[in-house]
Amino acid sequence: MNHIITISREFGSGGRELGRRLAEKLGYAYYDREIVEEIAARSELSVHYVNDILEHKPAFSFPIHTGASFLMTDAIWNPTQTIYSTQCDILKEMAEKSDCVVVGRCSDHILRNFDPLRVFVYAQMPHRIERCREKQPDEQRTDRQLARMIKNIDKHRAKYYEFFTDRKWGDKRHYDICINTSAIDVKRAADMLAHLVTSSKK
Amino acid sequence: MNHIITISREFGSGGRELGRRLAEKLGYAYYDREIVEEIAARSELSVHYVNDILEHKPAFSFPIHTGASFLMTDAIWNPTQTIYSTQCDILKEMAEKSDCVVVGRCSDHILRNFDPLRVFVYAQMPHRIERCREKQPDEQRTDRQLARMIKNIDKHRAKYYEFFTDRKWGDKRHYDICINTSAIDVKRAADMLAHLVTSSKK
Repeated sequence: MNHIITISREFGSGGRELGRRLAEKLGYAYYDREIVEEIAARSELSVHYVNDILEHKPAFSFPIHTGASFLMTDAIWNPTQTIYSTQCDILKEMAEKSDCVVVGRCSDHILRNFDPLRVFVYAQMPHRIERCREKQPDEQRTDRQLARMIKNIDKHRAKYYEFFTDRKWGDKRHYDICINTSAIDVKRAADMLAHLVTSSKK
Repeated sequence: MNHIITISREFGSGGRELGRRLAEKLGYAYYDREIVEEIAARSELSVHYVNDILEHKPAFSFPIHTGASFLMTDAIWNPTQTIYSTQCDILKEMAEKSDCVVVGRCSDHILRNFDPLRVFVYAQMPHRIERCREKQPDEQRTDRQLARMIKNIDKHRAKYYEFFTDRKWGDKRHYDICINTSAIDVKRAADMLAHLVTSSKK
């Protein structure tokens, strides 16, 4: 069986960068936005819309349809479930293909039969705000506004996760290791996890 | 400033063994039961009584007094606070002395000004029960009874911690790294943490 590492992360904690660095160090495939693009391609929905459903608005809203004709299909009226189901197929195919690091997308739950190393990445709010500013130097929002935005995104991630997994997002009991990147920076965390994996595979 | 690692742990998760192994690997001092003995010596209370207060019954109970005469002192009537205060003094002295690993005793909070690496160790209940049986091969209790005992000890640890720190025990936000020893065994966890520390000190 391939070796799978799933990274769940709070917005602004650096989980995505950690995943990328870890995959590079281990020579594993890395899946993140590729999943959204693949879901969009298979379901004939726009990348923007799929991303919205996955990250921000897991609800029954009216999609921007890119290809197929306008039919009363499940893909239109039940987009959240359709996207989730497509996502499950894609993730399992990816996990069958090679060792990989997968960021987000309920991958810890969807790939549970692959016995993944399940990582949760979190950080204190000031650290996450600082990180947002580094990534978007022209950010105009105040710290308070940014904190509200960050909390909002996490709230949606939690809702989405809980809806499909029936588990509390971020509850340490569902992960093998939780890393606070306010204290252990992303590079060190990636290095530490690479050491853990190479010293003896889980 | 010396480098301090604090290990908080659920009962039966192997946190104590992890701390010992980590200290050995790093060549750091290791403090665990030594703290109880030192508290007992300084407060002239029995080791058994101090341990009871710290681990099991943080309450106002009548102590078994070992040395001093029977006076209506704080040490008799307010043993929980007295023990905590002595514990604070001892931990700070230990942290001043050398690099060290400290297990339990609210050390993450008491030594916060030493900027410790704060580790929380946890595990799923079946794993903890199994560990208890390994440590006590003549254990007669059923799994259900053992689970109740484990939960009870953790409940007291949580109460004690929360009383003195005003924080939720085990909440990942108060730790730098949380390790689930059901998935990452104690030896690998110690090796990983030693790598983290030696690769670049926090």
